Amino acid sequence: MITLYDYLDSGNGYKARLLLSQLAMPYRYVELDILQGAARTPQFLAKNPNGTIPVLELADGRCLPESDAILWYLAEGSAFLPAERFDRAQVLRWLCFEQYSHEPYVATPRFIVRHLPADSPRRAELPQRLTRGRAALQVMERHLATRAFFVAERYSIADIALYAYTHVAPDGGLELEAYPSVRNWLARVAAQPGYVRLLDRPGA
Amino acid sequence: MITLYDYLDSGNGYKARLLLSQLAMPYRYVELDILQGAARTPQFLAKNPNGTIPVLELADGRCLPESDAILWYLAEGSAFLPAERFDRAQVLRWLCFEQYSHEPYVATPRFIVRHLPADSPRRAELPQRLTRGRAALQVMERHLATRAFFVAERYSIADIALYAYTHVAPDGGLELEAYPSVRNWLARVAAQPGYVRLLDRPGA
Repeated sequence: MITLYDYLDSGNGYKARLLLSQLAMPYRYVELDILQGAARTPQFLAKNPNGTIPVLELADGRCLPESDAILWYLAEGSAFLPAERFDRAQVLRWLCFEQYSHEPYVATPRFIVRHLPADSPRRAELPQRLTRGRAALQVMERHLATRAFFVAERYSIADIALYAYTHVAPDGGLELEAYPSVRNWLARVAAQPGYVRLLDRPGA
Repeated sequence: MITLYDYLDSGNGYKARLLLSQLAMPYRYVELDILQGAARTPQFLAKNPNGTIPVLELADGRCLPESDAILWYLAEGSAFLPAERFDRAQVLRWLCFEQYSHEPYVATPRFIVRHLPADSPRRAELPQRLTRGRAALQVMERHLATRAFFVAERYSIADIALYAYTHVAPDGGLELEAYPSVRNWLARVAAQPGYVRLLDRPGA
C-alpha cells in the first residue's frame, strides 16, 4: 500500500488526498507536525532532502516529493490527465502557474495568518503577497470566463492543483467576490464525485 | 514551424533553447524586451495571460507558456524524458523543485543584480534569497553526490531545467565552490551533444 506523508492543513497535501479519494485508491496516512520540525528530521530528509510535505512513498519504499509530481504520477493513465500531448502540456502549464505565480501569493498569506503568531514580522509580507495573489486570481478569472475547467473542458489535475489553495484564499485575506468565474468553477470542482474537504482526515 | 517568444538573458527561455538545439528542431525566435513591458502588451497577453516568457507557439497558433511545460511538451517521446512512470514523476519532481525552491532564490538574485539599478530597493531582498539559494544548492549537492544526473542516471529535461540558472548562479552572488558534485554535474551537462550557451542567439 502507498503512504502519504502530509500535514492536514496543507493545501499541497490536500491535492494528493483529493485525487486519491477520486481514484478510490486506499493509502496509509502519516501526519507530520511540520510546525514542530517533523519534516526536518534526518529520517524524513532521507525521504525528501528538501524537507517538504507531501511525500508519496510507494510499497517498495521509493519516495516521491512535490505535490504536482504526486498528482501526475497518480493520474497517469486515468481520466484525470488528458491523453493528448498538447492537453497534457497545458495541464503542466497550469501546475507550474500554481507553484510559481499562485501558491506563494495565495497559500503563503493563509499560512502566515493561520499558523504564525499575530506579532510575527512575516505579517509585513502580506500586502505585497496579496497584490500578486489578486493578479493570479485575475489570470484564472480571465481563463475561466469562457471555460468550465482549466484544460480541454474536463476536470483534471490542473483543476485539483488550483482548487486546493484557491477555495480557501479568503483565510489569508483574498476575498473572491470579484472573481465570479472562479467562484462558479470552485462550485463545479466541489460537485465532482469523490470530493473530500481540505480538513477531512483520511480514514476518519 | 514553431515560434519561441523569449528574452535572451532568461534562463527559463534558455531551457527551451537548449532542448530545441539538442532535438535539432528548427524554430522561429522572437525576442521581447521584457524590461520595457513587451510581455505585458494586449497582443502578448492573448498568448499568455500571465505575461511571462517563454511562450511556445505552434504552427497552428496554439500557445504554451511556462518553461517546464514547454520542456515536457517538446521532450515527450524523446530520449530527454524517461518512458518509465516513476522516473517521469521524478523528472517532474525536480522541475517543481526548480520552480518553487530554486528559481526564486538562484535566478531572481541574478535578475536583481544584472537588470535592476544599483540603488533598487529590491537589493534588500538579496541576503534572504541567497540563504535559500544556498539551501537549494545543498539539496542538489546531496542528490548529485551519488548520481551522474538527476533522474535514472541519464541526461533529461530535469538536468536542463536545473542547469539553466545554476550554471550562472555566481552572477547573482551564489558561488559554487562549496558544491563539488554540482560543479561536476554542470560540466557533464555542458558536454552533452547539441549544447548551446545561455547567450548564444538562435539563428545567429
